[in-house]
Amino acid sequence: MASILLLNGPNLNLLGQREPEVYGRDTLADIERRCRDQAERLGHELACRQSNSEGGMVDWLQQNAPGAQYLIINPGAYGHTSIALRDALLGLALPFVEVHLSNVHAREEFRRSFMLTDVAVGCISGLGAQGYLLALQFVAEQLREGR
Amino acid sequence: MASILLLNGPNLNLLGQREPEVYGRDTLADIERRCRDQAERLGHELACRQSNSEGGMVDWLQQNAPGAQYLIINPGAYGHTSIALRDALLGLALPFVEVHLSNVHAREEFRRSFMLTDVAVGCISGLGAQGYLLALQFVAEQLREGR
Amino acid sequence: MASILLLNGPNLNLLGQREPEVYGRDTLADIERRCRDQAERLGHELACRQSNSEGGMVDWLQQNAPGAQYLIINPGAYGHTSIALRDALLGLALPFVEVHLSNVHAREEFRRSFMLTDVAVGCISGLGAQGYLLALQFVAEQLREGR
Amino acid sequence: MASILLLNGPNLNLLGQREPEVYGRDTLADIERRCRDQAERLGHELACRQSNSEGGMVDWLQQNAPGAQYLIINPGAYGHTSIALRDALLGLALPFVEVHLSNVHAREEFRRSFMLTDVAVGCISGLGAQGYLLALQFVAEQLREGR
Amino acid sequence: MASILLLNGPNLNLLGQREPEVYGRDTLADIERRCRDQAERLGHELACRQSNSEGGMVDWLQQNAPGAQYLIINPGAYGHTSIALRDALLGLALPFVEVHLSNVHAREEFRRSFMLTDVAVGCISGLGAQGYLLALQFVAEQLREGR
Amino acid sequence: MASILLLNGPNLNLLGQREPEVYGRDTLADIERRCRDQAERLGHELACRQSNSEGGMVDWLQQNAPGAQYLIINPGAYGHTSIALRDALLGLALPFVEVHLSNVHAREEFRRSFMLTDVAVGCISGLGAQGYLLALQFVAEQLREGR
Amino acid sequence: MASILLLNGPNLNLLGQREPEVYGRDTLADIERRCRDQAERLGHELACRQSNSEGGMVDWLQQNAPGAQYLIINPGAYGHTSIALRDALLGLALPFVEVHLSNVHAREEFRRSFMLTDVAVGCISGLGAQGYLLALQFVAEQLREGR
Amino acid sequence: MASILLLNGPNLNLLGQREPEVYGRDTLADIERRCRDQAERLGHELACRQSNSEGGMVDWLQQNAPGAQYLIINPGAYGHTSIALRDALLGLALPFVEVHLSNVHAREEFRRSFMLTDVAVGCISGLGAQGYLLALQFVAEQLREGR
Amino acid sequence: MASILLLNGPNLNLLGQREPEVYGRDTLADIERRCRDQAERLGHELACRQSNSEGGMVDWLQQNAPGAQYLIINPGAYGHTSIALRDALLGLALPFVEVHLSNVHAREEFRRSFMLTDVAVGCISGLGAQGYLLALQFVAEQLREGR
Amino acid sequence: MASILLLNGPNLNLLGQREPEVYGRDTLADIERRCRDQAERLGHELACRQSNSEGGMVDWLQQNAPGAQYLIINPGAYGHTSIALRDALLGLALPFVEVHLSNVHAREEFRRSFMLTDVAVGCISGLGAQGYLLALQFVAEQLREGR
Amino acid sequence: MASILLLNGPNLNLLGQREPEVYGRDTLADIERRCRDQAERLGHELACRQSNSEGGMVDWLQQNAPGAQYLIINPGAYGHTSIALRDALLGLALPFVEVHLSNVHAREEFRRSFMLTDVAVGCISGLGAQGYLLALQFVAEQLREGR
Amino acid sequence: MASILLLNGPNLNLLGQREPEVYGRDTLADIERRCRDQAERLGHELACRQSNSEGGMVDWLQQNAPGAQYLIINPGAYGHTSIALRDALLGLALPFVEVHLSNVHAREEFRRSFMLTDVAVGCISGLGAQGYLLALQFVAEQLREGR
Repeated sequence: MASILLLNGPNLNLLGQREPEVYGRDTLADIERRCRDQAERLGHELACRQSNSEGGMVDWLQQNAPGAQYLIINPGAYGHTSIALRDALLGLALPFVEVHLSNVHAREEFRRSFMLTDVAVGCISGLGAQGYLLALQFVAEQLREGR
Repeated sequence: MASILLLNGPNLNLLGQREPEVYGRDTLADIERRCRDQAERLGHELACRQSNSEGGMVDWLQQNAPGAQYLIINPGAYGHTSIALRDALLGLALPFVEVHLSNVHAREEFRRSFMLTDVAVGCISGLGAQGYLLALQFVAEQLREGR
Repeated sequence: MASILLLNGPNLNLLGQREPEVYGRDTLADIERRCRDQAERLGHELACRQSNSEGGMVDWLQQNAPGAQYLIINPGAYGHTSIALRDALLGLALPFVEVHLSNVHAREEFRRSFMLTDVAVGCISGLGAQGYLLALQFVAEQLREGR
Repeated sequence: MASILLLNGPNLNLLGQREPEVYGRDTLADIERRCRDQAERLGHELACRQSNSEGGMVDWLQQNAPGAQYLIINPGAYGHTSIALRDALLGLALPFVEVHLSNVHAREEFRRSFMLTDVAVGCISGLGAQGYLLALQFVAEQLREGR
Repeated sequence: MASILLLNGPNLNLLGQREPEVYGRDTLADIERRCRDQAERLGHELACRQSNSEGGMVDWLQQNAPGAQYLIINPGAYGHTSIALRDALLGLALPFVEVHLSNVHAREEFRRSFMLTDVAVGCISGLGAQGYLLALQFVAEQLREGR
Repeated sequence: MASILLLNGPNLNLLGQREPEVYGRDTLADIERRCRDQAERLGHELACRQSNSEGGMVDWLQQNAPGAQYLIINPGAYGHTSIALRDALLGLALPFVEVHLSNVHAREEFRRSFMLTDVAVGCISGLGAQGYLLALQFVAEQLREGR
Repeated sequence: MASILLLNGPNLNLLGQREPEVYGRDTLADIERRCRDQAERLGHELACRQSNSEGGMVDWLQQNAPGAQYLIINPGAYGHTSIALRDALLGLALPFVEVHLSNVHAREEFRRSFMLTDVAVGCISGLGAQGYLLALQFVAEQLREGR
Repeated sequence: MASILLLNGPNLNLLGQREPEVYGRDTLADIERRCRDQAERLGHELACRQSNSEGGMVDWLQQNAPGAQYLIINPGAYGHTSIALRDALLGLALPFVEVHLSNVHAREEFRRSFMLTDVAVGCISGLGAQGYLLALQFVAEQLREGR
Repeated sequence: MASILLLNGPNLNLLGQREPEVYGRDTLADIERRCRDQAERLGHELACRQSNSEGGMVDWLQQNAPGAQYLIINPGAYGHTSIALRDALLGLALPFVEVHLSNVHAREEFRRSFMLTDVAVGCISGLGAQGYLLALQFVAEQLREGR
Repeated sequence: MASILLLNGPNLNLLGQREPEVYGRDTLADIERRCRDQAERLGHELACRQSNSEGGMVDWLQQNAPGAQYLIINPGAYGHTSIALRDALLGLALPFVEVHLSNVHAREEFRRSFMLTDVAVGCISGLGAQGYLLALQFVAEQLREGR
Repeated sequence: MASILLLNGPNLNLLGQREPEVYGRDTLADIERRCRDQAERLGHELACRQSNSEGGMVDWLQQNAPGAQYLIINPGAYGHTSIALRDALLGLALPFVEVHLSNVHAREEFRRSFMLTDVAVGCISGLGAQGYLLALQFVAEQLREGR
Repeated sequence: MASILLLNGPNLNLLGQREPEVYGRDTLADIERRCRDQAERLGHELACRQSNSEGGMVDWLQQNAPGAQYLIINPGAYGHTSIALRDALLGLALPFVEVHLSNVHAREEFRRSFMLTDVAVGCISGLGAQGYLLALQFVAEQLREGR
């Protein structure tokens, strides 16, 4: 049994109310519950967190990375600008998959800058809330294969 | 009677001491008091807040947007870089006027990038503390016309 | 009693007919009348002019600046490209507030270049015809304070 | 039962021999077989094709799109440059998920230009051969929900 | 005796564990202790702080700048992006030396943007933990000469 | 019978003398006569104008657009820089075809910026004076089909 | 009697089904028939071809240019990227007119790069299927004048 | 005896009042008089004109170029943006020397774009009013040598 | 005895007819014959191919690389744009020398982008048909030295 | 009587032989002699030097600036790239006029970067060898006026 | 005892006279003496050199690097442009610290390009002449630790 | 018998010691000897020179070009930045082949700027010391054919 982290960034707590035509109607609580259930079925433990603060996300990662095996992160807006998050991820050497609910390539130009993705294992975008579950499946497979 | 929010970003609490030749000699407390008075005269309620933290500004907006009709925001430095603030404003669907005390076009090059302005109703810059009062007047007029 | 100039640039004479969802339904004559009335109430005189010609705007400014104390200008399209207008404003040393009816940041990319704004006192954009009245209020306040 | 297309672009027939540290050791035949099996388990039919030719990919899409419900495409190199593929996908109006075996953000600069992704439903990259299976799962879910 | 501030930005609390081949093996506590000792030997008092939060760094600077004579700052990731920190430093008018442990010019392209350095007195980079001590020596010399 | 406008911009009155190897030997009067004849044959009326002045072109368009059904415009140099002409065309909502005598893509780099073309119906360039007649034919066809 | 070539590039065989609001409802066969008829009326022979393949277009041009007097080409997507087509056209020294059905300036940014146009005689865009007929008329006129 | 033209662009009629520390204290009338005197001494006739209008400058050049041998032009602001002036100068094939009173390289960035200079014979900048006289001397020498 | 491949890209079959002042008067058949002869003299076997198709070049490389020791490639136009060719060359791990007949640096700007050259062993350009023979000599030397 | 320096940069010793259609047929010795004569007539002394070496030019300026009142410099190629020359000129605080024989704006793109011009008094370009004499005249006038 | 090199680039011999408000009042001789003294106190030998010539600096480095353990270099202007110096430093494999007297980030834009810094151990800028002494201290510490 | 020049730029005298994995183990003396031998065998005379100084290279070219028929140049670092060398080569009108030992396209970004190559006959890069010999062979062939 491995410990997996799920970190959601700014405004993802608005899910279900904020621009539902872009982000879908599930609340973040719904999504976290479904992810936690699936993690359990796959034999792992999932610790979830959402924060609107760049520093808060870095703090939480520093506190929770020791003892964890993998991270699934939807960095939201900070994924396009945060060198601090990138440094934390590099410093903590925790492998991670990046998830975006919407297809960021179909949105504003400034969302085409990716500060974390090149140091991620991979990225899933545009597949809505299902993206988290697919990421979890991939992580489980990786852990099963001992990577 | 409507509820209007006034949110000031980083370093605006230094007003009156920080580069007075650029930003004027009024303190933020002076300005907020004058704005609150005018809002009352116009028949509205004004809730004020200043924060140096991007995440703190997002948190406050998420907590105070429900029940509010309009926002006046001086995002300070974050107005030039924050996608998180932009996402919050888009997600909360609160109409807002952006105010800058100084003429940002007359300053450093990097202040010519505007992350919020294209989703604002409009923008007032360079008119000093009076900019807030003019914005308030505009907001009152908009509310009066039911927009 | 001071003399204030109000100069409108190209196509602003189309106001009320041209893209009303962007620029509102008031005609330029309506707006100039309301501005002149308010200027009078504030104890000042307002001289108004509209021109579709860059050179015509420069000519008018050169002829009317002597004897005037302040300028409110909506340079329209020329605000994004005209060095000649900029040079006239610098050469005549007349303080001015720039007004745009629409939120220029929410429109085409080429409207994000500002040739006059950095030498203006300040700028109001996106507040529709009310922008002129707010600018006038600001100018009156400036004149009252002897700036 | 729906018909799903799986199209692989240039050099993906080298899989298993070409830079295995980047792309893994499975051959394309292995991957296609696993995908076809999973499609069957999910109650769908999967038609597979690989081509080194941009025009050949366009030809195949034009011939096979009618009667198909969804496409999974790994456009390989052409995903970074081909307007012709983009036009075919737009013209055929076939919803598709884009898959990249490697994390394209971690590679050469020119692989950060994406010609198809903004018109895709979403994108999975860096998750190796498993990316195809996850895409298939997503497609099945979409079809089940009638999207 | 002067009061000197030492502010370290995001992830510098990971020192000694995070990429030691880049940043060395000393912990931040080790470094702060050595700096505090040297400051004392030079007849000054050193107040130290680390924060992962941009707003937290601004808050701390605003609270501690009054009464301090000089600042040594390693802004970490925020040195490349933070206008808020820059505004705080300009507003507080506290002279400062910027220190980077690693040679930022030898790293990723995005670390070649410097938001604070042009308003610093000077900068030391790539000299590891010794950079702080050299900066301290410089500051002491400046204070001795009454600058 | 519809009223069609033909507006030629700066220096097109030099036709026949100015760089004949680029622009041909017909004078503008020749061309306008041939266009007027063809318009008549097609059952329409053609009003022609040439101006060297950006503002003059805007003035003429504002005065003549009401009552006209279509415009053929060779904006000359202003086609590469004039936002004022673009605003007039958008504001007057008159459909238009843009014509260039020479192949602008084969000339100086700065002629590859097009300020009007994206709001035109279409564009003909490099076909010499015949380009006007082909445009007229297209316009007649459009009018015949009631577009 | 001259021999004229008409070459259509990728996805133009989708005409009539692909995005009809952009490209119109005529099929390519309809258009080719009308062009062939008009060519005959003008006393010329028209050889038509469509290909989705860049290399296929180059092959066809190399095989058919000898013996032909003029080319009308709608290069579709390859018009924005193909140096190979450009080299073929330069090498074969066949004069040509470029035609685009839609107004490419009103579409995505990447369609504003033109790889062939500067070596064409001229270009017609945005005039729909009529553009081919107008081009044919121009070519006939050129041939009549012995150019 | 040759006929030489001297054309001054926008705001040069403000000379002597506008930013004298940049442009000197001579009025344009003073300068034109001195130039006319020197031209006479050199055996030539000088026709002078100032205009604030781009179109007005083009008009005047078109009317006065026939019969003239050389032009001295200070295009002011339009020298940095006007393709129309450039086209007029190319079309009229009148050799010209460009003069700028101030050192344009020492001013705003946008004054480093030169739209006329590459088709001029040469350029004199930063030498104040004397620049005109030196240009005149050069022109006289050229005429004397029959160039 | 080693097997060497010689692959020529689009339009190189036009050699001798296409722009001879740029590319010389030898036909491709002449050049291939001379190269094959020299290869034999050096004790090696040379397999030659020309294709106008990007995909066709990739196909041929994939089929012929196994069993070959070295490649000489003149990718023509595709050398400036083809990621697919680059991927094939990287995937097949065949060392290669790139040859251009003309001096590509002396031609259009877009020929200064090189998609293959940084993964080549080296490059010869501008030395005409002799470039192939010199490349062959280099390859023979490399093979002799066992590299 | 003042001492004036005339410094010519790299390749200007080739004058008269190097590209005479661009630079004229006078040798540098001819030009220096004419300049020295004119300087004498104007009552000044002229010290001349040519060097192909950036460092050599800096050396000579450092040695000769003390005691000199003005410099005329044709920096040749170094005028487009040399920060060292710029630093020397700034450090020595010697006013200077920059001269270019050819019209640098009409030549290669890289000659449009000017490293010295913004710190010069002014610049003369394209007026051939006469440019030096005109510069000398200007310098004499400046010295006469005590500037 | 190690041998350390101190190399100063162009115009640094002007120290004490050149822009003292930027560079301080010490002459280079003063600084070199102080550095030599400190080097001796630290048990090392310091060889000093200044040159205005890029090639001269390369020559001196090639001649003096063998037998030296470390370099302190203030490349002056050449630090922003010289690939030759960079190649020399890489080729000689001598570790070095780069020193700039002034804060180059606070000066002209073109001083923000750094050609040597990414291959240096580290950099000290803006700390005036003390920067050399701090660099020396760092070098001594490195040598002491056997790096 | 013709006279051929071989000029090597900065740091090429380090050959054999400087980064041998990039540049090979032969010394420059070895290479020059082999080139001189081959030139003799081909019936020509080869004059060799190496210089670390841009000005020194220009000086040598100016002194040796008269009487020489061809140049082989490895400009080293100056090939990427030197306009002075380019001007010398253009002025002296000596045909030349450029040689680079390493594959410059596979190295730092700034080595992709070529200041000489577009005025060279051709270029050989990445073929090590053999590149010189191949260039010599090409030159001999050119001389034999009287070009």
